[in-house]
Amino acid sequence: MRTSEPSTFPRNAWYVAAMAAEVQDKPLGRQICNARMVFYRAQQGQIACVEDFCPHRGAPLSLGRVCEGKLVCGYHGLEMGCDGRVIAMPGQRVRGFPAIKSYAVEERYGFIWVWPGDREQADAALIPPLHWHANPEWAYGGGLFHIQADYRLMVDNLMDLTHETYVHAASIGQAEIDETPCKTEVHGETEVVTSRFMHDIPAPPFWQMALRSNGLADDVKVDRWQICRFTPPSHVLIEVGVAHAGKGGYAAEDAHKVYSVVVDFITPETEDSMWYFWGMARKFNPGDAAVTEQIRAGQHKIFSEDLEMLERQQRNLAEHPERQLLKLSIDAGGVQSRKLIAQWIDREQPVQRPAAAQA
Amino acid sequence: MRTSEPSTFPRNAWYVAAMAAEVQDKPLGRQICNARMVFYRAQQGQIACVEDFCPHRGAPLSLGRVCEGKLVCGYHGLEMGCDGRVIAMPGQRVRGFPAIKSYAVEERYGFIWVWPGDREQADAALIPPLHWHANPEWAYGGGLFHIQADYRLMVDNLMDLTHETYVHAASIGQAEIDETPCKTEVHGETEVVTSRFMHDIPAPPFWQMALRSNGLADDVKVDRWQICRFTPPSHVLIEVGVAHAGKGGYAAEDAHKVYSVVVDFITPETEDSMWYFWGMARKFNPGDAAVTEQIRAGQHKIFSEDLEMLERQQRNLAEHPERQLLKLSIDAGGVQSRKLIAQWIDREQPVQRPAAAQA
Amino acid sequence: MRTSEPSTFPRNAWYVAAMAAEVQDKPLGRQICNARMVFYRAQQGQIACVEDFCPHRGAPLSLGRVCEGKLVCGYHGLEMGCDGRVIAMPGQRVRGFPAIKSYAVEERYGFIWVWPGDREQADAALIPPLHWHANPEWAYGGGLFHIQADYRLMVDNLMDLTHETYVHAASIGQAEIDETPCKTEVHGETEVVTSRFMHDIPAPPFWQMALRSNGLADDVKVDRWQICRFTPPSHVLIEVGVAHAGKGGYAAEDAHKVYSVVVDFITPETEDSMWYFWGMARKFNPGDAAVTEQIRAGQHKIFSEDLEMLERQQRNLAEHPERQLLKLSIDAGGVQSRKLIAQWIDREQPVQRPAAAQA
Repeated sequence: MRTSEPSTFPRNAWYVAAMAAEVQDKPLGRQICNARMVFYRAQQGQIACVEDFCPHRGAPLSLGRVCEGKLVCGYHGLEMGCDGRVIAMPGQRVRGFPAIKSYAVEERYGFIWVWPGDREQADAALIPPLHWHANPEWAYGGGLFHIQADYRLMVDNLMDLTHETYVHAASIGQAEIDETPCKTEVHGETEVVTSRFMHDIPAPPFWQMALRSNGLADDVKVDRWQICRFTPPSHVLIEVGVAHAGKGGYAAEDAHKVYSVVVDFITPETEDSMWYFWGMARKFNPGDAAVTEQIRAGQHKIFSEDLEMLERQQRNLAEHPERQLLKLSIDAGGVQSRKLIAQWIDREQPVQRPAAAQA
Repeated sequence: MRTSEPSTFPRNAWYVAAMAAEVQDKPLGRQICNARMVFYRAQQGQIACVEDFCPHRGAPLSLGRVCEGKLVCGYHGLEMGCDGRVIAMPGQRVRGFPAIKSYAVEERYGFIWVWPGDREQADAALIPPLHWHANPEWAYGGGLFHIQADYRLMVDNLMDLTHETYVHAASIGQAEIDETPCKTEVHGETEVVTSRFMHDIPAPPFWQMALRSNGLADDVKVDRWQICRFTPPSHVLIEVGVAHAGKGGYAAEDAHKVYSVVVDFITPETEDSMWYFWGMARKFNPGDAAVTEQIRAGQHKIFSEDLEMLERQQRNLAEHPERQLLKLSIDAGGVQSRKLIAQWIDREQPVQRPAAAQA
Repeated sequence: MRTSEPSTFPRNAWYVAAMAAEVQDKPLGRQICNARMVFYRAQQGQIACVEDFCPHRGAPLSLGRVCEGKLVCGYHGLEMGCDGRVIAMPGQRVRGFPAIKSYAVEERYGFIWVWPGDREQADAALIPPLHWHANPEWAYGGGLFHIQADYRLMVDNLMDLTHETYVHAASIGQAEIDETPCKTEVHGETEVVTSRFMHDIPAPPFWQMALRSNGLADDVKVDRWQICRFTPPSHVLIEVGVAHAGKGGYAAEDAHKVYSVVVDFITPETEDSMWYFWGMARKFNPGDAAVTEQIRAGQHKIFSEDLEMLERQQRNLAEHPERQLLKLSIDAGGVQSRKLIAQWIDREQPVQRPAAAQA
């Protein structure tokens, strides 16, 4: 961990660490907020997370195996408990063995959530509710990218969807996004909302597909909305949809519209790299797995377009740390989100100091 | 840019940035003399070059597109002018936007030339004339390599062709090169010439092919010449050829000889990497595209042999910066060329200081 | 070379630099103890080793060729002698040329051995005897890995074979290794021995194969032994074998046992990378080349399993230099071996200081 630089992410917060399906029989090693962690399923499949560092000789526990709910080091067989205390080691008395760090971890809504900071403060009630999960009226599909860029560049990206016109011109972009002003609101220390409502416009290819998929005409004018909600530390949920024009737009009855939520969980790996969990929850045609896969493949392509842009933007910014970038009205969503992030980091400074002394 | 080290290349000079064909519809990003640049075709196909850095959020403009002669950022649609000033941005007033750096750039002789330093001093008349370009009696073919080595190692390489005997033994090398002394002359601050004339020797495989290609016997003794001309900052043009022995050598009539010019434009990317534009202009059989391709493929192979040598030489030298290398008579061409480079760097110091303060 | 850090390896010692078959007609470049060396065969096939650095322009001599026992630089033809003095260079008087470093080097037992330190102290009698070499009752097969880890992690690995139970569960591992205590002895400054004797246990798959291969029943209980001998700087020879239970174990007559020596020569490349020469000398079925190849392939697979573990252990330790690792009884072999290494390093400090000043 680079302790000389100010942190760029809060630690006392829930981050998505993995998709639940990533952690099955084998342990999963993943670096989050600069900490190398290992995730595994302990007794009764319950998720557990400790440092990926065997206290015996420093081997990564993620190269080991899980045996009757205990994490067994793959080098010399040390058995680790989910509290970071050693359970046993062949031929050794382990009472005096040093413990390693364990992390608060929860499995919820199909994701593994981790709290990298002080586990005493970890309250599972703070995990944001994902109401569509396990709801038969909704379907979900998604994926994961590793991106070599500061996670806040992805927050900026998602809180300003004007980039769709340029980066995603062939799928969801259209000139009307640029031409329609957006509005940004900040709700205390917990939410930033940037919204844009477009009226009486053609539907771009993605939404034409969605209309057809829902049995609606795809060749008529629509009203379109984008409501980006940032919540700290780095979650962005975007309500998106179109309704046949004049039917009430965002408030139209279900029979006249298609809508979904773009799901973005952005987890810092280090100061300049991230894990990007992306997906879409939709409330149309939920039983059609082919549509789920088609959307997932489409999103994969769309977010790949962002990936190169962000990595090269990161390189440009790293080479010119002295340059002040413009903060235009379209950037308000990202600017306000970064302010909340900074507040959260500031807020935890006194809390984190003693914790760091223990580590 | 590493400002703590003394520069190893002049900036107020014309460098080859690209082959003209590399810049078509799409912008081309390329780092030259430590500066990231983007090249594109503005109005009427005219070449333009600005920093590869969007003043909005630092995105690389080279990921964007060219639209009616304007460079459009691929992230949020900012329109950049070829003078580095912002033309427009959707929904924004751009008058107060900061400008980025623009560069003097010229398209000439099938190459794009850039002047990385003070554009006020850039005079297109200083671009070296390539008389064979667009001349039906000549043909040209060439290519581009990226090499992880100080560009001056390539100048050394080309100004001492004794290495041909060892590195290129199967094509153009022959023992007689080593055995024949070379002569090096310096012409003021503008040229170093190293020349070697060999008499009554067998022709190596490349020149046998050239003789045959020109309808001349390939199994008789020849006179052979190599005249390497270095001009700052880093251009090396080498007159090479053979004539049937006793017909006057370099001065023989065209009916008795084959000759060409090896073209080497060596452009620093950083202090320890370079773009190497290589090619051959020949005055025999100019209409035969198959010969052009055969020579191009042969040069590609020959220069690939140099590439590994230079990259590993660079690594060795970087590990032993304290060692003084030998400067033998065969090295005089490189030694004198480096002196001219150093003079050019020194000369521009007072000019560059205020420019650096602005950057 | 990083001179600011204390060395982690002695230099006045014989290391294995290559398998003899690696050095044939062409020179071989290899970095050992931070020094780039080139190995080649001089007059009468005699092995020679000098710095991989041409005193003319710093080119790596390993890109050159060997011509009548002389090492010829592949760049400009300088001829290097095996004492590091220049023999000749085309068209040049070489008397004043600086010499490069030459190294004491020996070919013995199918390996090339090098002494990276003061060549005056290099005594070939100090090369450890490998009695099985060229002995028709024995057969040998082996290979080479490059591993990105401190070479001492491999010494630890080999001096504590409890890891076999976990890392190599499918071939040579078995729970009885863990359950049987080992004993570690230190013999002055020259040897550490860790031994483990197991009685009346099933034979794991590798040893079943060996028993069958030697015409012995593979489905009966066996006595098994592992005797790991570390000798500085970093050689580990492990006597391993099984005898039918109750026939005397390690001391049983040949008719009742199969045994072999696991050969491990571990050569530092840099402080955090190594060359790992591994193999097995066996005293059963020596004439059967198919068995040699089967064992070699099996060892290749087994040691590949160690490789990832060590490289990731190295990364973990580099990230946490402040952590004190546990030193359990099973670690005694590695702990004592490291003590000998440290003594050897200390011992050569006064010798090395003037040598470093010359370099």
